[in-house]
Amino acid sequence: MNEFIIITDVGPRDGLQNQPRILEIDERLSLIAALAAAGIASIEVGSFVSPKAVPAMAGTDRLFDLLPKGDKVDYTALIPNSKGYQLARDAGVRSVNMVLYASEGMAQKNVKMSMREAQQITAEILARSRADGMAVIATVAVAFACPIDGPIDPAVVREAVARFMALGADRIVLADTIGAANPMQVRQLTHDLVSEHGASRLGCHFHDTRAMGMANVFAAVESGIRYFDASIAGLGGCPFAPGASGNVATEDVAMMLDQMGFNTGVDLDALLRASDLAQQLTGTAPGGRAKAWLQPWLQKKAG
Amino acid sequence: MNEFIIITDVGPRDGLQNQPRILEIDERLSLIAALAAAGIASIEVGSFVSPKAVPAMAGTDRLFDLLPKGDKVDYTALIPNSKGYQLARDAGVRSVNMVLYASEGMAQKNVKMSMREAQQITAEILARSRADGMAVIATVAVAFACPIDGPIDPAVVREAVARFMALGADRIVLADTIGAANPMQVRQLTHDLVSEHGASRLGCHFHDTRAMGMANVFAAVESGIRYFDASIAGLGGCPFAPGASGNVATEDVAMMLDQMGFNTGVDLDALLRASDLAQQLTGTAPGGRAKAWLQPWLQKKAG
Repeated sequence: MNEFIIITDVGPRDGLQNQPRILEIDERLSLIAALAAAGIASIEVGSFVSPKAVPAMAGTDRLFDLLPKGDKVDYTALIPNSKGYQLARDAGVRSVNMVLYASEGMAQKNVKMSMREAQQITAEILARSRADGMAVIATVAVAFACPIDGPIDPAVVREAVARFMALGADRIVLADTIGAANPMQVRQLTHDLVSEHGASRLGCHFHDTRAMGMANVFAAVESGIRYFDASIAGLGGCPFAPGASGNVATEDVAMMLDQMGFNTGVDLDALLRASDLAQQLTGTAPGGRAKAWLQPWLQKKAG
Repeated sequence: MNEFIIITDVGPRDGLQNQPRILEIDERLSLIAALAAAGIASIEVGSFVSPKAVPAMAGTDRLFDLLPKGDKVDYTALIPNSKGYQLARDAGVRSVNMVLYASEGMAQKNVKMSMREAQQITAEILARSRADGMAVIATVAVAFACPIDGPIDPAVVREAVARFMALGADRIVLADTIGAANPMQVRQLTHDLVSEHGASRLGCHFHDTRAMGMANVFAAVESGIRYFDASIAGLGGCPFAPGASGNVATEDVAMMLDQMGFNTGVDLDALLRASDLAQQLTGTAPGGRAKAWLQPWLQKKAG
């Protein structure tokens, strides 16, 4: 039995909120269903934010209502604050994702608070979540570099991770939000964190903006990381580099992990169908980079 | 002073011979000049093969005649056999690249010989090269997987490398000819080879067909490999997967190495101009994947 690696597909949230076309609820649902059918273990369904601020995420509560009940998929939602937490809880969400900041510049830009104030809010929601039986993922944004403050001191990330480990976060995800990390840096930071905390509650989220997304996934795998975010069809751009690639594509990550001998539970053939669907629905998703190779290869294998 | 990594740009050979458009000698020369101007340490200029078999490589002797004299670039040429060696020597070439095969299937397909017979010819040319003061690179084709024979036993590669190390090859390059290697496999094989022979005469050549090219470069860097082939603008497809990516792009590799703190001697700005030129000349080169990010970033840095 091969070692398991969990992929969370963030396409329906991180991906779709960066698309010019706003999808209907039933379209979002069809994409999520295609991902679930492909065996994706965890899906970020949407976010509970102001529909004025992020129109693409309007109706996430209805979407949760429409999700299949009783399957084994871990459906999560992004929440920005305690109001979002309340909305998510009311919608029956069992797992929420909250953002921590590793730079003052990004904390100010996104939530008009200091890093510490933003962390405090997350810590308070985390405390509430225990009583509610809600799972909490804390994503450390700009964990490697910030477009405003530049390179991030790894000590800042290690401190935030240690704090939320101690507070009982179910998972802490290091996010290379702007795709600026290099694999040597990833290898070092993930090595240090795994040495200190073990790997069981650590994850990574990479973008391919500088063509290093897959190398960063591998670097983190080497350190023992066994949770990865990825986005079907590479959905989602980089807000700081128009035209540049966004999230690593789920199909590329799943294929690489598969070829390295890990078990992701994913059926690559069904995953490519989900990728095709993401491309059809959005008209802009680039599709995994290995698709031109993977699709005919799978057909040949089957035929 | 940062540690040096040598990049050999194989675009003018491996890249151009896979393009639909056959370039004129002066166009090939302009691309080589642009690479040299960008500080690329080593350039594979062309090959000495039958112009009937590979029309894109006709006139490589004239090209060598037109190269700038006295610069510090290591200009190499691919040769298939002793006739090619003679032609290269007559053209004043100082460094030749010869292919070894790690599978019987590929040796039969490409040169209609057994692996051992093909190795013997290379060994004989290598012996001659010593008297001529010619540097010899031996490239192990399909070192990880073969489209005909499937996965390659690493022991076969280790044996070929040991033999040519002992025979005095100046460099031995492990080539993932069809872009099928995964970074875990690369990490293991390069680790074993570096442990046995040191890294000073080992190099790697990766394709991005399965989106793992950059991850493979990183895996080899981790093992201590300090020579890499790459192709400007990602020139060169994969003959076994139409539409799929070919060689890793020199600009992506140079940027990653730069950001990891290595010294490649490359001016990224000038390298992007060489990449633009490769795209203009061929009309088909994809361009490095990080270009959409790198070009505006360099402009902003300069302005």
